[in-house]
Amino acid sequence: MGIKRGIVIGRYQPFHLGHLALIKMVLERVDEVIIGLGSAQASHTPSDPFTAGERLLMIHKSLEESGVPPGRYYIIPIPDVNNHSIWVAHVVSLSPPFEVVYAGNPLTRRLFQEAGYKVETLPLVKREEYSGTEIRRRMVEDEEWENLVPRAVARTIHEVDGVTRLRQLHQTDVTR
Amino acid sequence: MGIKRGIVIGRYQPFHLGHLALIKMVLERVDEVIIGLGSAQASHTPSDPFTAGERLLMIHKSLEESGVPPGRYYIIPIPDVNNHSIWVAHVVSLSPPFEVVYAGNPLTRRLFQEAGYKVETLPLVKREEYSGTEIRRRMVEDEEWENLVPRAVARTIHEVDGVTRLRQLHQTDVTR
Amino acid sequence: MGIKRGIVIGRYQPFHLGHLALIKMVLERVDEVIIGLGSAQASHTPSDPFTAGERLLMIHKSLEESGVPPGRYYIIPIPDVNNHSIWVAHVVSLSPPFEVVYAGNPLTRRLFQEAGYKVETLPLVKREEYSGTEIRRRMVEDEEWENLVPRAVARTIHEVDGVTRLRQLHQTDVTR
Amino acid sequence: MGIKRGIVIGRYQPFHLGHLALIKMVLERVDEVIIGLGSAQASHTPSDPFTAGERLLMIHKSLEESGVPPGRYYIIPIPDVNNHSIWVAHVVSLSPPFEVVYAGNPLTRRLFQEAGYKVETLPLVKREEYSGTEIRRRMVEDEEWENLVPRAVARTIHEVDGVTRLRQLHQTDVTR
Amino acid sequence: MGIKRGIVIGRYQPFHLGHLALIKMVLERVDEVIIGLGSAQASHTPSDPFTAGERLLMIHKSLEESGVPPGRYYIIPIPDVNNHSIWVAHVVSLSPPFEVVYAGNPLTRRLFQEAGYKVETLPLVKREEYSGTEIRRRMVEDEEWENLVPRAVARTIHEVDGVTRLRQLHQTDVTR
Amino acid sequence: MGIKRGIVIGRYQPFHLGHLALIKMVLERVDEVIIGLGSAQASHTPSDPFTAGERLLMIHKSLEESGVPPGRYYIIPIPDVNNHSIWVAHVVSLSPPFEVVYAGNPLTRRLFQEAGYKVETLPLVKREEYSGTEIRRRMVEDEEWENLVPRAVARTIHEVDGVTRLRQLHQTDVTR
Repeated sequence: MGIKRGIVIGRYQPFHLGHLALIKMVLERVDEVIIGLGSAQASHTPSDPFTAGERLLMIHKSLEESGVPPGRYYIIPIPDVNNHSIWVAHVVSLSPPFEVVYAGNPLTRRLFQEAGYKVETLPLVKREEYSGTEIRRRMVEDEEWENLVPRAVARTIHEVDGVTRLRQLHQTDVTR
Repeated sequence: MGIKRGIVIGRYQPFHLGHLALIKMVLERVDEVIIGLGSAQASHTPSDPFTAGERLLMIHKSLEESGVPPGRYYIIPIPDVNNHSIWVAHVVSLSPPFEVVYAGNPLTRRLFQEAGYKVETLPLVKREEYSGTEIRRRMVEDEEWENLVPRAVARTIHEVDGVTRLRQLHQTDVTR
Repeated sequence: MGIKRGIVIGRYQPFHLGHLALIKMVLERVDEVIIGLGSAQASHTPSDPFTAGERLLMIHKSLEESGVPPGRYYIIPIPDVNNHSIWVAHVVSLSPPFEVVYAGNPLTRRLFQEAGYKVETLPLVKREEYSGTEIRRRMVEDEEWENLVPRAVARTIHEVDGVTRLRQLHQTDVTR
Repeated sequence: MGIKRGIVIGRYQPFHLGHLALIKMVLERVDEVIIGLGSAQASHTPSDPFTAGERLLMIHKSLEESGVPPGRYYIIPIPDVNNHSIWVAHVVSLSPPFEVVYAGNPLTRRLFQEAGYKVETLPLVKREEYSGTEIRRRMVEDEEWENLVPRAVARTIHEVDGVTRLRQLHQTDVTR
Repeated sequence: MGIKRGIVIGRYQPFHLGHLALIKMVLERVDEVIIGLGSAQASHTPSDPFTAGERLLMIHKSLEESGVPPGRYYIIPIPDVNNHSIWVAHVVSLSPPFEVVYAGNPLTRRLFQEAGYKVETLPLVKREEYSGTEIRRRMVEDEEWENLVPRAVARTIHEVDGVTRLRQLHQTDVTR
Repeated sequence: MGIKRGIVIGRYQPFHLGHLALIKMVLERVDEVIIGLGSAQASHTPSDPFTAGERLLMIHKSLEESGVPPGRYYIIPIPDVNNHSIWVAHVVSLSPPFEVVYAGNPLTRRLFQEAGYKVETLPLVKREEYSGTEIRRRMVEDEEWENLVPRAVARTIHEVDGVTRLRQLHQTDVTR
C-alpha cells in the first residue's frame, strides 16, 4: 500500500501526556498512527469513568492543540469482546490495515504476536506520574492532576463535570 | 399524564423489611411506584441467589400481605447491560414513564442525574439489619433471618429451598 | 404451593380485545395468570412498534379498567434469546412457577411440550379483527382501529403518539 | 505437527449421505478431519430443526456405523457470531489446527481465503437429493426421506420425534 | 461548548459522491461533523460487503483528497444494538456531543426526535445513481461504478479486492 | 435409548491425570461419557490460558494414548452463558442425552439437581497435585509439571508454546 501504519491501543482513562509523547514517538516511525480506544463500551466506573465519545474528543483536541497533523492519525473505538482468541480479528476488522503494534500490555503483546504481527515496545516517559490510575487517584483525592494531561483533556473533563462524576462513583452506597 | 410515578431499583436478594418500608414511603409521595428488579439475569451465586421470577413473586406476595394496593405498583425485571451509558435508556424502555428516581446507589444516582432525571434519597430504616448482605450471611451461618423479611418472602424462600441453595453455593469445590 | 398458575405469552403489539378475552378465560381456569410480554427488547419497527414499557402499561391499565383483580396477574417482560433450546428455561427463570401454558403459536407449544409442560389452546374470539397485524395495518392506513382494543390501550397509544410513530416507520427512506 | 488436518463446515440439518461421502473423500486426503457443526445455537425452526447435541449424536453414530475410524475425526459445535470478519478466528479458537478447508459455500470460502487458508471444493454426489432442504421438505410432506440419510440419523430423528417436531414448526399459528 | 456539531449516520457500503456532497453541505451549517459508521460490525454480505476499517479508510482518504479540513470531522464506527430504544444512547456514548442530526432514514429520524434532538433532512444529489445499492449492483454486473465514488474509495476497494469479494458473495452455494 | 451416558464438566486448564482417572472411573459406570469443556470461550488469561481447540486436542490425544475406546466419549465445548438459570438447558442443547452428572463443583451440582438430574461425586486422586491451579503455578515458576499430565498434554502445550504464553500473561504491564 505504500503507507506504513502502526497501532497503539489503550483505554485512555484519561488521555495523558505520556500517551501524547508515545503517539509522537510512533509518528517518527510510521506514516500514520491508529489510536485504538480500548474498552470502548466502558464508562461511569471508578477505573473507567469516561465514555468512548468523551475520550475520543479528548484525544482529537489534544492532538490538534499539540500540532499533530490531523491527516496522520485515526481514532478507533474498540469495544471489548468476551473472547481473547478473536480479539485481534476484531481489532483488524475495525481498523485500517497496519504493520506494527506498539504495546506494553502483556496480553496485547501476546495476542498480536501469536497472530503474526510485529510488536514493539517504546520507552515510557515518567511512568509513575503519567498514569491513568495515578491521575484518577488525584482527582478523587483533590490533588493536582491537570499538569499531567494535555490542556484539551482538562477542558473536556471540566465540560462533562468529570471530577464530580468520578468522586460520586467512589461514594459508598447509602441505600443497600 | 396526570399520574405521577417514581422508580426504585434494587436487586432484592432477598426483598426485606427495609425495602418494604421504602416502597411505602415512596407511595406517600407519588401515585404509582415502579419497582425495578435489577440484575434480573443473575441467580445461583452467593450474592445473587434468587432468580428474577422468585424475587418477583416475593415482592408481589409481600405487598399483597401488607395491604399495598396492587393497582399502585409495577414490578419490572431489568437485566444488566454491559455498558453504563445506555443503562438509563434500557430502564426507560422497559418501564412505564416516571418522573422521580429514588436511589441511594451512587452509580444509579449519577446515571439518572446525567440523563436529566430528578433523583431523591429517602432515609433508611435499620440499615445494618435490613440489608441483603446481612440476611444472606445469617442464612449461611444458620442465624435468625426471618424477622428481617416480610412473611411472604420467608415462605417463598422455603418453597424453593433457598437456604439450602445458598449454603450449597458457599461450599468448597471438591473436584477441581 | 396450592396456587395454580397459567402462563400466556404474546408480543401484544398492541394488546387487544382478543388478548383481554383470552386472559379472562384463563382466569376461569387458574388462580393466577402470568402474562409473558414476548420480544421485550423489540420496539420501533413496523411489526413491533411499542416498547416493553408501553405494552406493560397498556396491559396493566386495560386489566384495571375491565375489573380484573390486580392480585391475580403478573406481567413479565421476556426478551428474546438467540437459541430456542434455552428459551423455556429463560421464561421459567423470569416467572413465578406455573403449571399450564396457554398457547397457539406452534413454536411456543412445541418448546413447552418438549420441556414437559401441559400446553392448552383456547378458542379465539373474532380472530380476523382481533389481531395485532390487522390493527397495525388499520393504524397505518388511517382506518378505524380503536374499537378493537381496550380504551386504556387507545389512550396509551395516543399519549406516546404511537400512530404517528408507526406511520413514520413505514415511510420510505429519503436519504439512502 | 506432522498430522495433516482438513475442516468441513456445515449445518447438518440433518446429516445425510452426501455429507458422509464428503467426509470419506476428505479422509483420503488428510490424516484427520474436523467436522464443524455450524449454527450450533440454532434449533426448532423449519430450516434448523435439530439441536447441536442431536446433530453431534447423528454424526458420531453415522461415522461409527460406516466404519470411519473414530480416532480420525473431531466434531466441533460452532455457534454463529454476528460479525463475519471475526468468524475465522472464532472457528480457529474452537478447533485443533488445520491446513485445508473443504467448502463450497461462497461466504465460507471467501472468509478462509482472505485469512490465508487453502480452500478446496470437492465434487458432490447427487446434489438434488442429498440436500438438507430436500430432506426436510420430504419430512414435512410425508415423502420417503430415510433412504437419503445414514441409518443412525434416521434412528436419532425418530428417538427425538423429529418429524413431528418439524411438522409442528410448519403449522400456522392459531392464536396470533 | 461554543462548537456546534452535527451528526450524519450511514452504512457507507461504499461511501459515494452523494455522501461526500452531503458532508460538505453539513459543514456549511455546523463547525464540526460527526460521521457515524452504522452497522459497524457487518461485512462480507451482499448488502454490507466492506468492514468498518475499510469504510473508515475510504472516508478518511476521500475527505482528505477533496480538501475537507481534517480537524472538522470525526468518523465513529457504530455497531448495531438489538434494541432500538437504546440506540440513541448508544450513539451518544460513542460520539462527541452534537446538536443536530442530519438524517433521511425514517427510523433514525424517529428515534432521535423521540429523544428530543433536532433532526433535519438535506436535499440529496442524484439519488438514483449515488446509492450504495446501485453501486453494488453495478460492481456485481460488471458495469461502470467508479464514477459514482471518490477516487480514494475506488482505490481502497481495489486494494482489498472488493469487487471480487462482492461477486463471490453473490455466487450460489455449490455444496449445500 | 438403551445407551447409558454420564457427563463430566470441567475447564481442563490443562487436562491432567486426575481428569483422566475420573473419566476412566466414569466409563466403568456408564456406556458413554460426555466430556463438557467448560468456559469454552476463555483463553489467554492466567487462569484460562488454553483455547477450546487446544484443550479439545489435548483430551482427544490423551484418551487415544491411554487406550480409551474412541467410540465411548464425546468432547463438547460449552461456552459460558451470563445466566445460571439457563445453563443446564444450554448444556443439554449442546450434548447427546445423558442420565447422570458427575460433578464436585457446588454450582454445577446445584443447577443439575434443581433441574432434576441425578448428580454423583466420585473420589478424587491426589487432589493437591492433580489440580489445574497447581499445574499452572508450576509452569509459571519453572517447576516440574509434566509428570502431572498425560504425555499428549505436555506435547500439545509445547507445540503451542503454552508455557511461554502463560508466563507472558503473568508479566507486569510495562506501558500502562
